[in-house]
Amino acid sequence: MSTPTDIKLYMEDVGRRARAAARLLARADTAAKNRALLAMAAAVRREQTVLLAANAEDIDAARAAARDAAFIDRLTLTGKSVESMAQGLEQVAALPDPVGEISEVRERPSGIKVGRMRVPLGVIGIIYESRPNVTADAAALCLKSGNATILRGGSESIRSNRSIARCVHEGLRDAGLPEDAVQVVDTPDRSAVSELLRMNQYVDIIVPRGGKSLIERVMAESRIPMIKHLDGVCHVYIDESADLAKAISIADNAKTQRYGTCNTMECLLVHEKIAARLLPPLARIYLAKGVELRCDERSRAIIRAELGPNDDAASLLVKAASEQDFYTEYLAPILSLRLVRDLDQALDHIAKYGSQHTDAIVTEDEACAQRFLREVDSSSVMVNASTRFADGFEYGLGAEIGISTDKLHARGPVGLEGLTSQKFVVFGTGQIRT
Amino acid sequence: MSTPTDIKLYMEDVGRRARAAARLLARADTAAKNRALLAMAAAVRREQTVLLAANAEDIDAARAAARDAAFIDRLTLTGKSVESMAQGLEQVAALPDPVGEISEVRERPSGIKVGRMRVPLGVIGIIYESRPNVTADAAALCLKSGNATILRGGSESIRSNRSIARCVHEGLRDAGLPEDAVQVVDTPDRSAVSELLRMNQYVDIIVPRGGKSLIERVMAESRIPMIKHLDGVCHVYIDESADLAKAISIADNAKTQRYGTCNTMECLLVHEKIAARLLPPLARIYLAKGVELRCDERSRAIIRAELGPNDDAASLLVKAASEQDFYTEYLAPILSLRLVRDLDQALDHIAKYGSQHTDAIVTEDEACAQRFLREVDSSSVMVNASTRFADGFEYGLGAEIGISTDKLHARGPVGLEGLTSQKFVVFGTGQIRT
Repeated sequence: MSTPTDIKLYMEDVGRRARAAARLLARADTAAKNRALLAMAAAVRREQTVLLAANAEDIDAARAAARDAAFIDRLTLTGKSVESMAQGLEQVAALPDPVGEISEVRERPSGIKVGRMRVPLGVIGIIYESRPNVTADAAALCLKSGNATILRGGSESIRSNRSIARCVHEGLRDAGLPEDAVQVVDTPDRSAVSELLRMNQYVDIIVPRGGKSLIERVMAESRIPMIKHLDGVCHVYIDESADLAKAISIADNAKTQRYGTCNTMECLLVHEKIAARLLPPLARIYLAKGVELRCDERSRAIIRAELGPNDDAASLLVKAASEQDFYTEYLAPILSLRLVRDLDQALDHIAKYGSQHTDAIVTEDEACAQRFLREVDSSSVMVNASTRFADGFEYGLGAEIGISTDKLHARGPVGLEGLTSQKFVVFGTGQIRT
Repeated sequence: MSTPTDIKLYMEDVGRRARAAARLLARADTAAKNRALLAMAAAVRREQTVLLAANAEDIDAARAAARDAAFIDRLTLTGKSVESMAQGLEQVAALPDPVGEISEVRERPSGIKVGRMRVPLGVIGIIYESRPNVTADAAALCLKSGNATILRGGSESIRSNRSIARCVHEGLRDAGLPEDAVQVVDTPDRSAVSELLRMNQYVDIIVPRGGKSLIERVMAESRIPMIKHLDGVCHVYIDESADLAKAISIADNAKTQRYGTCNTMECLLVHEKIAARLLPPLARIYLAKGVELRCDERSRAIIRAELGPNDDAASLLVKAASEQDFYTEYLAPILSLRLVRDLDQALDHIAKYGSQHTDAIVTEDEACAQRFLREVDSSSVMVNASTRFADGFEYGLGAEIGISTDKLHARGPVGLEGLTSQKFVVFGTGQIRT
């Protein structure tokens, strides 16, 4: 796929400006960054009418293009969402600044003192789909961590993104920071994305935010490292020793609290010795909420027996799972269900079908908990808690730019710290090497 | 470039075995890993004669292929280097095991406790040139950090690497660990490297160790993240406020203690106000050691004036620097030299010509030191110490797999910790999200 010359030149210019702004931002002091964030929040609040009008135009265009209701829903801004955008900016201003923090200082036998200083990554490219609030959220996190940002939103939200960017630029100007610190790629040409993914001389990291097809496209094309996750095939394993009440409450919450999030449980694994006690009451809860159960043979038999011949409506929701179901992130009221012989079989199942996102065990057996924590190779591993907790805010990171299922650099929810690196700093008094 | 089918299948098999071994290694306990390392050391000592005989065959072949003296030197093993290989294995056994370590546990308002657990990366591919000792060193660091390794040494050292690998496998067997934990790619076909660099389903990180041409080739081909540095264009900046004795001692040591290492100073920047006092005695030291000085106009004038008309031999070593010289990693007794107006010009010079490896300032002015530490964007930044300290052992990491000038994942010397990642672990007592 070749990029038109004008897009190439345009993106080259964006990249060069971002690199220059990054050097200034890296040395910006905390007060200036916070002043910019608060001024952005004020501008967003003041310009609410303008933002909503721009957003209405985007919505009209999306309707004319016959986009579906879920799409329009993600695209839509309201008075409430504009206010929460402003509050998000203020919350990032209130977070501690990671940049310049020195840690782990140790004196060495040579007499030098060696420590590590936290530094920004440089330039961060964000590629996202229809949610315009990402423009403000991502700009704020990148700015606070001392990074320049290149934002490429969906072409269907370009008017909304432009007007949010105007507020962001006003805030940067107010604080005496370069406007190029946050640039919005302002062309509907899709080859701009391909160009962005190849500019490894200007862009240090790419954060794709959106559905699986977006992530897959970015993964296939990018020559730049990414913070990303592809799937959230999250498991809860109910151990033989589980407390029944905890198990039911966690398995219910992990599946039904929200269906469309990446940390929602998609597959429930149940120790065969607890299945007869656990499954009947738990299945009743799921079926009452309209959750379709895709079961292995044994769990299906237990649930069918519980329902009896008069539960026709519920019975329709109890189906046989296919091999493919166990690999699937439903993002819907559907759950895969399987009985396992023991912890080892649960671990093998998760290693084979999981996506290294978030997996939990419910158990009262300390040794089982320890093995699960140690051996499940996922970005978040939990004992006796709902997978829905896998989130930057719940973990205390303040906010998150995304969740990484990779192991390099950042793993799990990524906040300000994940947008920085650590360099070595050495304090001497004239030491030389002998 | 297409890979022959047999090499493709062979490498695919190597990758699959490594992935399977990695899962076993991740849960191996510290005692087993240490037992393996100590058994490897014992085998290396016992097999010294065999190792040296295999190495002699490699050397004969290299001589027959008319490889140069430096190449033969890197390839050659001696009784002493075999002993230091054994000691290196013992030292890694003595280092603390990073795997499984839980840190930063904090209780959140929801009642869950969130912490981070250190985990291995998985499979590490090492691509190196003629030094056979890397086979043992790299295998040891990867094993201790719970990772499986695929080692691809130079084809000219294949007999040496094979016999070292036999000792490594013996150690793994003795400790009940899978031999596939450390695999040596045993084919002289160069397309095996290309294949390795594309196996991102089996290999998590690539560590290239060797000269710039090797690193460049790996960078161009790899689809897998790397721990690497390309250049070590290291600077020392002597500030106006520097202590003259410290400045001379550090500038001398940073350049002349060893010429061929990546943390050797390649360019000296001198504040114009201290140049007349510093340069004459310092130039005398360099010239006495036969270091060629490639100078900007003003520094050249100062040094020429000091030498006078009777220092013909020394004068021959004082040359004019070209623009290209400032970008050059000489790895030789040659030094670029430039006067700067102030700290800002020094920072600009380093940002433009440097390689983000290691840079030092000599100053007694605390504010200058702070700005230099904060603003120089290199993997190691030093105050009043020789750049030669940039090294995993000197920093207290125990040993190093390499030095990274990248910002993602690891920056600076990389030891055991850099070969691991951190996942989130959550401890609950039945918490659900509301």
